[in-house]
Amino acid sequence: MNFLNEVTFRYPDAISFAPGRPYDGFFDVEQMLVDIRRYIDHLLAQGGGAQRVRDVLFQYGPASGQIRELIADWLRADEGVDVPAGSIVVTVGAQEAMVLALRVLIAGPDDVLLVSSPCYVGITGAARLLDIEVRAVEEGPDGLRRADLEAAVAAERARGRRPRALYVIPDHANPSGSTMPLAARRELLDVADRLGLLVLEDSPYRLVSPGPRLPTLKALDRHRAVVHLGSFSKTLFPGARVGFAVADQLVEDGAGGTAFLADALTKVKSMITVNTSPLSQAAVAGMLLRAGGRASALNVATSAYYGDAMRTTLRHLDAAFPARRRTALGVRWNAPTGGFFLAVSVPFVADNAALRRSAREYGVIWTPMSYFYPEGGGDTGIRLSVSYLNEAEIAEGVGRLARFIEAEIADTRGSGSQ
Amino acid sequence: MNFLNEVTFRYPDAISFAPGRPYDGFFDVEQMLVDIRRYIDHLLAQGGGAQRVRDVLFQYGPASGQIRELIADWLRADEGVDVPAGSIVVTVGAQEAMVLALRVLIAGPDDVLLVSSPCYVGITGAARLLDIEVRAVEEGPDGLRRADLEAAVAAERARGRRPRALYVIPDHANPSGSTMPLAARRELLDVADRLGLLVLEDSPYRLVSPGPRLPTLKALDRHRAVVHLGSFSKTLFPGARVGFAVADQLVEDGAGGTAFLADALTKVKSMITVNTSPLSQAAVAGMLLRAGGRASALNVATSAYYGDAMRTTLRHLDAAFPARRRTALGVRWNAPTGGFFLAVSVPFVADNAALRRSAREYGVIWTPMSYFYPEGGGDTGIRLSVSYLNEAEIAEGVGRLARFIEAEIADTRGSGSQ
Repeated sequence: MNFLNEVTFRYPDAISFAPGRPYDGFFDVEQMLVDIRRYIDHLLAQGGGAQRVRDVLFQYGPASGQIRELIADWLRADEGVDVPAGSIVVTVGAQEAMVLALRVLIAGPDDVLLVSSPCYVGITGAARLLDIEVRAVEEGPDGLRRADLEAAVAAERARGRRPRALYVIPDHANPSGSTMPLAARRELLDVADRLGLLVLEDSPYRLVSPGPRLPTLKALDRHRAVVHLGSFSKTLFPGARVGFAVADQLVEDGAGGTAFLADALTKVKSMITVNTSPLSQAAVAGMLLRAGGRASALNVATSAYYGDAMRTTLRHLDAAFPARRRTALGVRWNAPTGGFFLAVSVPFVADNAALRRSAREYGVIWTPMSYFYPEGGGDTGIRLSVSYLNEAEIAEGVGRLARFIEAEIADTRGSGSQ
Repeated sequence: MNFLNEVTFRYPDAISFAPGRPYDGFFDVEQMLVDIRRYIDHLLAQGGGAQRVRDVLFQYGPASGQIRELIADWLRADEGVDVPAGSIVVTVGAQEAMVLALRVLIAGPDDVLLVSSPCYVGITGAARLLDIEVRAVEEGPDGLRRADLEAAVAAERARGRRPRALYVIPDHANPSGSTMPLAARRELLDVADRLGLLVLEDSPYRLVSPGPRLPTLKALDRHRAVVHLGSFSKTLFPGARVGFAVADQLVEDGAGGTAFLADALTKVKSMITVNTSPLSQAAVAGMLLRAGGRASALNVATSAYYGDAMRTTLRHLDAAFPARRRTALGVRWNAPTGGFFLAVSVPFVADNAALRRSAREYGVIWTPMSYFYPEGGGDTGIRLSVSYLNEAEIAEGVGRLARFIEAEIADTRGSGSQ
């Protein structure tokens, strides 16, 4: 990503489809302060007076978090996920939740993490941090194929490795933008169950899905095979840095009883960040209380905004590359219904050199899809993020992108015919 | 620590000298919200209007933090530490700073971390998390002895290990309460320099030191041998979870130039928590601005409060064990001038079994010092924390503790004479 930052810095006038940055036009300082007060009132209504407020807001809090009940209520109301608050750990964004889950689940020297590929760089970064081996399983347009997953597990086992968990983003994935169909979700759980794999389900874009949304893997989970990771960073409040993990698997507690896997994650958390800022938790809790637990209601405007941006992008792509032209050139893209990202496939290598040409000569920046392939691949893919651009920027940006793509293809064909 | 939690839970009426919990009577919700607004006004005064405020407060921020200038100003004004803002990383408490520093500094398979022993459990926890080997160097009453440190380094090298860094808390250490004299600080830097060791200086209790304070190791550092870790969690605002690392060592940046070691820490941070909550940073920044950069001014009342608690504890210990009685029994303690902790030495094994007797029969709880010895030791030590008790509780608590100690000694001698 350093190269991307460098290009962005060097060509400040370029329109950038690169950053997966939330749109912030709906954020409001006064509202945020009101939300914090709302949570304080909620604490006061529970009794304990000012001392309890000081306890909760100013002190170190429990490592597992202090808004777990509110998160559990929201998951029940909004997601049909019915888990006890005790199976939840509040984290510093979903990134910390990934670190905790990997540290606990992929703990043996032969343990391997599987990731669907292309995949979010946060999970491969967390794995690298912990010296964890990653095996990529390439996705098709409808997500992972059963046969590919089975083959990867078999291959790992054949070399004496133990695939323990699989990381996926079923909804509006980063980077591909694709959403796993319902049948694929059921099949994935089925295969995971049979292979003895846990599924790490990440869900950062659920709350900005215009819907109708498919059930999460966790909602479909019948065998506690899913550890669900969540974040409020793309939706309610990026600057709060609040995420969470749901880990309701029962494990031995070391004292002859059982405990939620969440407790093991909490223990690791106490060595990394001790606890998630109670102030940040208060801001998120106040928002959940404002929405009566239905956080989705807080994101209606934001979801519509992103949905519009996505449709605008797709409309301009369609206009720039009408169906026959598109086929003739070999340019394709998917059509996500929400989220931040879409994937464009081009008939040339979309690498750093191409990105530099695109920024310098055409004034448009994007992310090479190859960045998201831990074992190589994706060389002809482009990730577009639509989350932070307005309609005029999208129109102009897609125009520039189309000219860049046309020119690259002409150059490639030109040099190919020499 | 699980046993301690269990005992605390089981004997709720016991007076507890166990938790290193900041006193929260001076915290104030309204003041905190005013501080956040103060930082917002500061941003507005810098220009950029509401959009910039939204950018800074609500968005993901830079992984290195956005209040580095304010922290650098404070370190210059309050600590005589003059470092560029670019050498600072803002972290989720000092705990995350420890994880980052260990991950970057102790990276090779033969690298070893040295810790002064007894030592803070946060650093050994972070080392365990990262599978880092720890070697303890036992402290004397004036801190580490040069000969012990040299011997430990020689022993590690003889077994093919590479001691890379030494973790110390020079001021009001947790757990011992001891403060390293000025000569010992200079000597430590001298020895570290000669042995090629970096010093990880942790400083959580500096701001609640009633003073006069000795210079930090970082202020005395002439060879950039010190990575300084700091926290606002014991002082300005525990619930903000804001700490920092100063890492102004110059290292190769991988592109033919040099960069601050802080950049390497930042890269690791981006894989753990991405960035420290901008909301939390805003609350701390507002406090620093309120104090005109002199954070020590914000802790005058708190320092006095802890100083009083410490003196009250020492006075009651003196009364319970007058000098001759103390000598006859073999009971000793140190006399810190500030901070949260003091260490009591007793002539019997102060282990979990003793703690249980103390809680059950005498209604007083403390922390076995042995918890803080990574390689064993400290069996006859007791850590008392005075930070969260009022004067009446301290008086009653020391009385109970004295009766427990007397009874244990009588029992030990009784059984010894049988």
